[in-house]
Amino acid sequence: MRIALLGGTGDIGEGLALRFARDTDHEVLIGSRDPEKARAAVADYEADLEARGVDANVKGFANEMAADRADVVVLSVPPYYVGDTVEAIEDVLDEETVLVTPAVGMKGDEDGLHYHPPSAGSVTELVAQRAPDAVPVVGAFHNLAADVLANLDAEFDLDTLVVADDADAKATVRNLANEIEGLRVLDAGPLANAAEVESVTSLVINIAKYNDDMHDVGVKWL
Amino acid sequence: MRIALLGGTGDIGEGLALRFARDTDHEVLIGSRDPEKARAAVADYEADLEARGVDANVKGFANEMAADRADVVVLSVPPYYVGDTVEAIEDVLDEETVLVTPAVGMKGDEDGLHYHPPSAGSVTELVAQRAPDAVPVVGAFHNLAADVLANLDAEFDLDTLVVADDADAKATVRNLANEIEGLRVLDAGPLANAAEVESVTSLVINIAKYNDDMHDVGVKWL
Repeated sequence: MRIALLGGTGDIGEGLALRFARDTDHEVLIGSRDPEKARAAVADYEADLEARGVDANVKGFANEMAADRADVVVLSVPPYYVGDTVEAIEDVLDEETVLVTPAVGMKGDEDGLHYHPPSAGSVTELVAQRAPDAVPVVGAFHNLAADVLANLDAEFDLDTLVVADDADAKATVRNLANEIEGLRVLDAGPLANAAEVESVTSLVINIAKYNDDMHDVGVKWL
Repeated sequence: MRIALLGGTGDIGEGLALRFARDTDHEVLIGSRDPEKARAAVADYEADLEARGVDANVKGFANEMAADRADVVVLSVPPYYVGDTVEAIEDVLDEETVLVTPAVGMKGDEDGLHYHPPSAGSVTELVAQRAPDAVPVVGAFHNLAADVLANLDAEFDLDTLVVADDADAKATVRNLANEIEGLRVLDAGPLANAAEVESVTSLVINIAKYNDDMHDVGVKWL
């Protein structure tokens, strides 16, 4: 399978790229608005992976080209770029491509981070509204700490939740995410349940802020 | 210490009563709008505890009398009764009494449960608005499954989050909750961070709905 990580040069995209490259046999395509930036990130990821004896299968492209070649497209961009990014790639999306969104809208103040969804109800539902009707949308990878994912020395035993209305697309993303070592995937239902999933991201950041030794905390449902 | 569980005849109140009675040396006061109902619940709890060799220290009262005698008052009532319950006991509350709120506003549809906070932002903040100014309010015990708490055969290793603006009151509730076997307390910051904590309750119920063998699921932050 080919997995495109749009905005895959930083934050959650970096970690997903490294983990998919190390833990799965899938081809990883790094997308960026600037293809040079994508290729520079690929060189960094390859160096990290090769130092660990991993024969990396990672390539860099402009976002649209990465999306065009991929079976699964992950929108690992900040929430305020999500709409524009979907628009930039909509011509290359079709019902064969699964669109995955891990972004969360948050607003900070002195107390901490607060969940701040768009008027669509959640970023996940915003992506579903903006994507062409035939393209299945899956919310996943919301509550993972970017720094933990991107550090291949870090082992973890964490959960990620998926929401989707399309059962096949949800199964594709479930299987893919379960291939990441230490990650268990749980089903949180349809897209309409995305807000509560996204909201947990603000909470993990607040927990990290108010408790000692809980930097980069994640979640496990038991 | 004396802990009053208002609405302590069912749901989360039952489980907290049994766990506090079994795991701590504190006196547990069950409150109900109907004192007869409180005393009937106490008889049930005592039978359960005595069958396990626990010398129960539990008494039943009308809500106002229970609150009047207590150092910590837990509003274990449904969210739509929270405002009225605070009003019914406000004359017996003072700055020496810590008011604890575990209630969450939710709305269900065919997809699952959705977080539905009051206009105050969260039930916790609603309680803080309705309580007399001097009374410290703490949000806690939101994301625990009532059935698990109330079944003393059930062992668990779960977290609960506390939010409060008053540091002393928060410390009191942290210490108290940490006395429950298997429960770890984490700090989620001030009252302004309550919404994200409460929202997790809808999520655990959705996870229970959409995954096999996850009935009565709880959460651990790792």
